[in-house]
Amino acid sequence: MAIVKVHGYPLSNATQRVLACLYEKDVEFEFVNIHLGAGEHKSETFLALNPFGQIPALEQGDLKLFESRAITQYIAQEYSDKGTHLLPVPGSNKTMALVQLWKEVETHQFEPPSTNLVRELCLKPFFGMTTDTAVVEENQGKLAKVLDVYEARLAQSKYLACEQFTLVDLHHLPNVQYLMRTEVKKLFDSRPHVSAWVADITARPAWSKVLDLQKPEQ
Amino acid sequence: MAIVKVHGYPLSNATQRVLACLYEKDVEFEFVNIHLGAGEHKSETFLALNPFGQIPALEQGDLKLFESRAITQYIAQEYSDKGTHLLPVPGSNKTMALVQLWKEVETHQFEPPSTNLVRELCLKPFFGMTTDTAVVEENQGKLAKVLDVYEARLAQSKYLACEQFTLVDLHHLPNVQYLMRTEVKKLFDSRPHVSAWVADITARPAWSKVLDLQKPEQ
Ligand SMILES: N[C@@H](CCC(=O)N[C@@H](CS)C(=O)NCC(=O)O)C(=O)O
Ligand SMILES: N[C@@H](CCC(=O)N[C@@H](CS)C(=O)NCC(=O)O)C(=O)O
Repeated sequence: MAIVKVHGYPLSNATQRVLACLYEKDVEFEFVNIHLGAGEHKSETFLALNPFGQIPALEQGDLKLFESRAITQYIAQEYSDKGTHLLPVPGSNKTMALVQLWKEVETHQFEPPSTNLVRELCLKPFFGMTTDTAVVEENQGKLAKVLDVYEARLAQSKYLACEQFTLVDLHHLPNVQYLMRTEVKKLFDSRPHVSAWVADITARPAWSKVLDLQKPEQ
Repeated sequence: MAIVKVHGYPLSNATQRVLACLYEKDVEFEFVNIHLGAGEHKSETFLALNPFGQIPALEQGDLKLFESRAITQYIAQEYSDKGTHLLPVPGSNKTMALVQLWKEVETHQFEPPSTNLVRELCLKPFFGMTTDTAVVEENQGKLAKVLDVYEARLAQSKYLACEQFTLVDLHHLPNVQYLMRTEVKKLFDSRPHVSAWVADITARPAWSKVLDLQKPEQ
């Protein structure tokens, strides 16, 4: 099988989703650094991989994919017999429906407020820009409501979709990790089941490898 | 098999996605009208179906689902041998990866600007509120860029994911239909492949049935 090439940037949350998945599945890959600052994601070469000009993108022989969650789904299925099972086994239509449901919840409920908070509290300070406190407050309120639903769910189920760690939990890792370094940490810590889930998923060896890639010497 | 119950509202774009899918698959269902104006989606009964308090939700015996795109995926798989095939047949991992990719594109690229435009140009006037022209302009710009990518894609492929109508195209129907009644129609009409695709997908008999449900006498 042709080698997997990932085009991305180690600090990008969408890139991290793909990297976490590849490490979980124990799939070898080549990493191509795309320098957003230099506008490399808007170059003709990169636009041939993703016409929307966003990282990450994946190449494997003739196959060209983008959108982090489409890439993780492909890897989970293509390498179903390797590494961690990231989809429920056995996968009845009903269990798979719960995975789909909670994947959509991550996308539509968790991602918008958490990405806004990562931008305001992590990226803006990093680039010397001013955090908008009104945006922070509004999105903390939204995230708190989402985490209330997660708390109730995780009281019944070890992971969000089922008793097994799946792509759903994995998709949360990048923003959860960023927010644990900010004042928003309290929203996770104050909910016991959410807090145990965060401790569990961030301690996965595959995730440590993703964090290692962010170290300056790499 | 237990009867499918859909809780929703005929004018809601997310509800329409589920209805279009059920009609395509020729699956009988019971429709439960949820009156957003009366706050029925925040009632205890409804929150037991969807803790986020949003329509649509689906019930089938013990199975309770929400998030329109998780529901359509479940229906497409559960009733794979009935009605229209909404997933590619045969579905190799690579073809399925393209379906996933374009489903993500609908969610992350098409939905945000198109839903903003539907709100400003269809819902606000309907409720006697003032359209924000700056928001309209910004989102028209974003949608135009998305439709440029679609034009290039549809020049190569009859439908977005492959040569066959799939869930991807279906997920676009509600917002496309709303926008065809507004000034934004020109963005679709001015791109020949996009325009032919819109004509094709909006002419599907299953979609006409969804539109019929919106008629006041229903
Ligand atoms: N929905 C996309 C989002 C990708 C995304 O937003 N990538 C960012 C970096 S994390 C990017 O490329 N930003 C540059 C740009 O949008 O111009 C995914 O999940 O892959
Ligand atoms: N991502 C959800 C969106 C659902 C949604 O936004 N539903 C709207 C009606 S179209 C709703 O229930 N709004 C009321 C509310 O959010 O309180 C889906 O696709 O099902």
